[in-house]
Amino acid sequence: MSSIWNHNISISIFGESHGAGIGVVIDNIPPGEQLNIEEIQHFMARRAPKKDGTSTQRSEKDIPQIMSGVLNNRTTGTPICAVIQNTDQHSQDYENVSRLARPGHADYTGAERYKGFNDVRGGGHFSGRLTAPLVFAGAVCAQILERRGIYTGAHIASISNIEDSNFDNINISREDILNIRKKHFPVIDDNRGKEMFSAINTAREELDSLGGIIECASINIPAGIGSPMFDGLENSISQLIFGIPAVKGLEFGNGFECTKLLGSQNNDEFYINEHNHVVTRTNNHGGILGGISSGMPIILRVAIKPTPSISQPQNTIDYSTFKNEVITVKGRHDPCIVPRAVPCIEAVVNIALLSHMTVYPNFN
Amino acid sequence: MSSIWNHNISISIFGESHGAGIGVVIDNIPPGEQLNIEEIQHFMARRAPKKDGTSTQRSEKDIPQIMSGVLNNRTTGTPICAVIQNTDQHSQDYENVSRLARPGHADYTGAERYKGFNDVRGGGHFSGRLTAPLVFAGAVCAQILERRGIYTGAHIASISNIEDSNFDNINISREDILNIRKKHFPVIDDNRGKEMFSAINTAREELDSLGGIIECASINIPAGIGSPMFDGLENSISQLIFGIPAVKGLEFGNGFECTKLLGSQNNDEFYINEHNHVVTRTNNHGGILGGISSGMPIILRVAIKPTPSISQPQNTIDYSTFKNEVITVKGRHDPCIVPRAVPCIEAVVNIALLSHMTVYPNFN
Amino acid sequence: MSSIWNHNISISIFGESHGAGIGVVIDNIPPGEQLNIEEIQHFMARRAPKKDGTSTQRSEKDIPQIMSGVLNNRTTGTPICAVIQNTDQHSQDYENVSRLARPGHADYTGAERYKGFNDVRGGGHFSGRLTAPLVFAGAVCAQILERRGIYTGAHIASISNIEDSNFDNINISREDILNIRKKHFPVIDDNRGKEMFSAINTAREELDSLGGIIECASINIPAGIGSPMFDGLENSISQLIFGIPAVKGLEFGNGFECTKLLGSQNNDEFYINEHNHVVTRTNNHGGILGGISSGMPIILRVAIKPTPSISQPQNTIDYSTFKNEVITVKGRHDPCIVPRAVPCIEAVVNIALLSHMTVYPNFN
Amino acid sequence: MSSIWNHNISISIFGESHGAGIGVVIDNIPPGEQLNIEEIQHFMARRAPKKDGTSTQRSEKDIPQIMSGVLNNRTTGTPICAVIQNTDQHSQDYENVSRLARPGHADYTGAERYKGFNDVRGGGHFSGRLTAPLVFAGAVCAQILERRGIYTGAHIASISNIEDSNFDNINISREDILNIRKKHFPVIDDNRGKEMFSAINTAREELDSLGGIIECASINIPAGIGSPMFDGLENSISQLIFGIPAVKGLEFGNGFECTKLLGSQNNDEFYINEHNHVVTRTNNHGGILGGISSGMPIILRVAIKPTPSISQPQNTIDYSTFKNEVITVKGRHDPCIVPRAVPCIEAVVNIALLSHMTVYPNFN
Repeated sequence: MSSIWNHNISISIFGESHGAGIGVVIDNIPPGEQLNIEEIQHFMARRAPKKDGTSTQRSEKDIPQIMSGVLNNRTTGTPICAVIQNTDQHSQDYENVSRLARPGHADYTGAERYKGFNDVRGGGHFSGRLTAPLVFAGAVCAQILERRGIYTGAHIASISNIEDSNFDNINISREDILNIRKKHFPVIDDNRGKEMFSAINTAREELDSLGGIIECASINIPAGIGSPMFDGLENSISQLIFGIPAVKGLEFGNGFECTKLLGSQNNDEFYINEHNHVVTRTNNHGGILGGISSGMPIILRVAIKPTPSISQPQNTIDYSTFKNEVITVKGRHDPCIVPRAVPCIEAVVNIALLSHMTVYPNFN
Repeated sequence: MSSIWNHNISISIFGESHGAGIGVVIDNIPPGEQLNIEEIQHFMARRAPKKDGTSTQRSEKDIPQIMSGVLNNRTTGTPICAVIQNTDQHSQDYENVSRLARPGHADYTGAERYKGFNDVRGGGHFSGRLTAPLVFAGAVCAQILERRGIYTGAHIASISNIEDSNFDNINISREDILNIRKKHFPVIDDNRGKEMFSAINTAREELDSLGGIIECASINIPAGIGSPMFDGLENSISQLIFGIPAVKGLEFGNGFECTKLLGSQNNDEFYINEHNHVVTRTNNHGGILGGISSGMPIILRVAIKPTPSISQPQNTIDYSTFKNEVITVKGRHDPCIVPRAVPCIEAVVNIALLSHMTVYPNFN
Repeated sequence: MSSIWNHNISISIFGESHGAGIGVVIDNIPPGEQLNIEEIQHFMARRAPKKDGTSTQRSEKDIPQIMSGVLNNRTTGTPICAVIQNTDQHSQDYENVSRLARPGHADYTGAERYKGFNDVRGGGHFSGRLTAPLVFAGAVCAQILERRGIYTGAHIASISNIEDSNFDNINISREDILNIRKKHFPVIDDNRGKEMFSAINTAREELDSLGGIIECASINIPAGIGSPMFDGLENSISQLIFGIPAVKGLEFGNGFECTKLLGSQNNDEFYINEHNHVVTRTNNHGGILGGISSGMPIILRVAIKPTPSISQPQNTIDYSTFKNEVITVKGRHDPCIVPRAVPCIEAVVNIALLSHMTVYPNFN
Repeated sequence: MSSIWNHNISISIFGESHGAGIGVVIDNIPPGEQLNIEEIQHFMARRAPKKDGTSTQRSEKDIPQIMSGVLNNRTTGTPICAVIQNTDQHSQDYENVSRLARPGHADYTGAERYKGFNDVRGGGHFSGRLTAPLVFAGAVCAQILERRGIYTGAHIASISNIEDSNFDNINISREDILNIRKKHFPVIDDNRGKEMFSAINTAREELDSLGGIIECASINIPAGIGSPMFDGLENSISQLIFGIPAVKGLEFGNGFECTKLLGSQNNDEFYINEHNHVVTRTNNHGGILGGISSGMPIILRVAIKPTPSISQPQNTIDYSTFKNEVITVKGRHDPCIVPRAVPCIEAVVNIALLSHMTVYPNFN
């Protein structure tokens, strides 16, 4: 099942960039949960192309039509399907894609995998556009979690070499998260945001692209959620995260940095705080130990590669003729996909968390 | 299913560090595959504690008893079960573990998850010892892949700040991989290996511990293996990798580094080489595009945290009494788990690769 | 995952009888398979309400819109989604359903399961209408199997006490199957069909309903398809069959009848036939031994209960007030669902067979 | 995954009849559940060969060794593995099995499936002996359910043409179930039991075998357990039931009989009883509507074929030489497997019920 994530909740994504439509089926959402459709659309709008030069000029309305599973704005408990009609396809822009492998894209690997029968227009099923239904699913899960006090927010931790501040990983408030989610360009330090914005515009002008890192935090997850081995929070989150195109790396807590610390520096000491809660003094572990939540904020960072679609000529092959060629990728590209990936990361974290939480006895 | 990895092949791990035994059931291995038991034991021996001061003094024989699925040294096609009896438990060393949360361990989170009923002796089901059956499974898969020319090997890329050379990511030979796997201390640059070795011993003497990074490469995977979305090679590998205790990060190809490159630098140009194969001139993508193999070496790097078990006094809580306490972790610890984690990483990569490959039409 | 069948191929069904639409996502269909859309619609038309008095007067066009996974009438290999818009809902007919439990329906059990939040209009997600997307999926699978010589057909084996002839279970030709599928009222013995037809009309006039048995045969499945234990052909087929509303029983081969035979009577002797094929002289086993195909026709029989929707007054409860009440089910009902269930049974058998076959090495 | 049943609880079975051992891994059992090992062994003893002439003379002790997941007689919440060593294999009895296909057995289909590499001694992984670990798993689940008032018991409903009485399907007490489970030969009407017993002995003397039907009942399941479509109680139970060798049919409630009733006869009217519970006046539906429990007893019946192993000469093939041959099956056979299958049916029903129940919010 390539495009189904099977867990306590399951997410089945379908569609191609230039087909009739794209969408998602979400199964096993608890019944009776109120859904605020406007909020869902707001969440999805954060992923939609921006009009500020940092993303593609393709105009996608991305209005999800809910086909099932919701009645009177409440979940019924049976599968929720949302369909987004494709409306702004310019298939002619991609005419040469069918023969030339765009470097950094899945054109060649997809052709090998599907014996050449996959829809390559606009990347087909591999398109970043398929994150729209994923974000729909994440928005649904987020509302259910937020009703229980669990909030997830992400920011751009870096674009190229320009770094934002990090979350205070032991002390993140609901307001911190709501604030970052409200921003048009989600960074903690807006000055650094301006530098990033400017760097992206420069890259665009130079027909090039930039990558970056996204940091995501989730707060108020009770201790004891998750499992060891293959069904821990990291396992579930990672399986989803690597489903987002352009992701090349993932770390939890202090991640790769911890490899340079001594155990005595890296271990997070537990103590009972003034509210009689078990907490840790530092949060290098990122809120997960042995696959299970510790009650501390869950912190993760995701590496997003520079958009492979660039308008410079590149050497490549024609994989139908097996000849060396030169390609100039036309179409409307994002010079940096990182800002639009921010809600995608939040979405999958929400999905993984809700999926784990719904099977615990105290979920109400 | 916390301890089952369900894919085309499935892996079901059971056991606790100080219980009767540990083991694995492997389902859907193709029938008729010759297994070299001696080689499997050699693979497992690489994970076993070493007698050189870099790992625990616990003496684990780790002789797997094959209960099923193998006849006359060939796989039958029905489930393979291997059981490893536990023989060298010193449960008394862990007496205080049942009440005090070892920092960096899953004692507290496990107690919350399992309402205090989990076996905490030696970490129970969370113990690194559970990687022994995982390595058994990986060794079985490795032999089946190697018969088809697919080889996987890993080395210690860094311990603390000491860095080994990296694999030449566009040109790794079978010999390179066999050589690195033969080494007692698996590094490319043995001089750096000696520095690492010495740093580990220093950490041990100071009752402290070190972490590090492991780099793993797989060669000769044909293009077209894997799938987009949630069943790509990265998704499957990551779900397994994060099942290995102490893993905090994972990156494919140039990983987090790619976030600092321009698209024009990061994109790997395709060309037809002199053998009429499609290859890329660089391998920043790490052999996977859109979740699917490109035919280039698959390269990944894993961050392993410093062993949380250290013999220095640490502040923590007693999670039964909910009081602040001081713990001094007794028992036999690894001052650095990285060397023993090397075959674990290889094991899960072999499992993921074979699992994807067995469903493809040309698998023979 | 209540409404996802996860196997080598997966089927995810969504929708409610009176919601916006219903549909299916089919994942892991092999790429490059030609689809004849007209034939799919013909298959679906066999399930649609008939204009002859044997079924509901609800006029469902059931035109599936293919959203994804098909390009130029060929499967792409990525998920196929088909959506059927609901157009002829008469929600007012079901006004009292929301409070009164229709006997034999899932109104009460669904309310308990979903805490009263499920959509009960027309049975909601429990409606027999949800078999339309299931039949779509089956029709897709059927075409792929038929290209490889594997044909599946079913007939009405009985309505109430009126019995049709049975298939000749050792000798069923492609023509036998095509013939039965062409019939408006699919029976082998048309005289018995007329009796059945007449009995159904009588039941309708008496505001009552009838049940019956469907016999299904599949031919030319090679020996060796399936697995022991929980992934045998019977296990997979049964999991799907019991997803069809109103199914109460399932038997393979001679089924319950075998319990009255001696082993020496029931065992099917193997022999090498004139074409040098391994066959059995009788086919009591129904083409499956140990969960695996024997190469003989696969034969199964399914018990369908009389439609629970009848227009006579029935005692029941109001499950919101917990009071005893009388209900008269309004709306347009099928006096006998058996004829419309025939293609549903074929559909799921095709799905299960293709799903098992696609993972075998010789599938091309 | 042929031998893994993946649900909220998962069951992974391994082993071959004449290999080193057989066993089961059970994952996701709730933590803290007290296990009475003696009761588990008693449950398993009901499946073991009897010394009364009705079953094989093979002497299997079937003592399960619990490798993991249980501490101080309580479940830890991590995987439970139980291993049963094989001790009484007489492999020489099966010498000719490796070439001759025993009619009614999976020898030929297994050889095709596994390319001849499967272990055929004693049926290998297809052996009825593999139900021993399945019964272990069922016994574990039964104890957890019984602590919550849910009891499951089965009886021999028929052997050949000799029929036992049926359960009173609307009124079955805990005592009824405990009584039937205590019986050496589990029938309601002991006189019919004697006739059955005598018929089995006659069959044995005539080197033949008998089949029969098992009826199983479960009481006190709350309404609302299960799901529509593919994850209903019938779907889950059926997937497990058809994993028991020799099962050829399964029906719920009045099953195939319902096909002869009118809807007005078959519908079960709801009413509020004197304890203010919702119940039905009849129980033709067998306690399940739309895949979900109604609160009424769950009733199902299973057809078991006559043991295919008979000591009469039978025509068959040698599947290695592809020649017609005659086989006389040696070894120790059950002239009727039905009595030993009774606890197997109970076992899988317990597994399915507990698996569905553990994910509901009110499970404690």
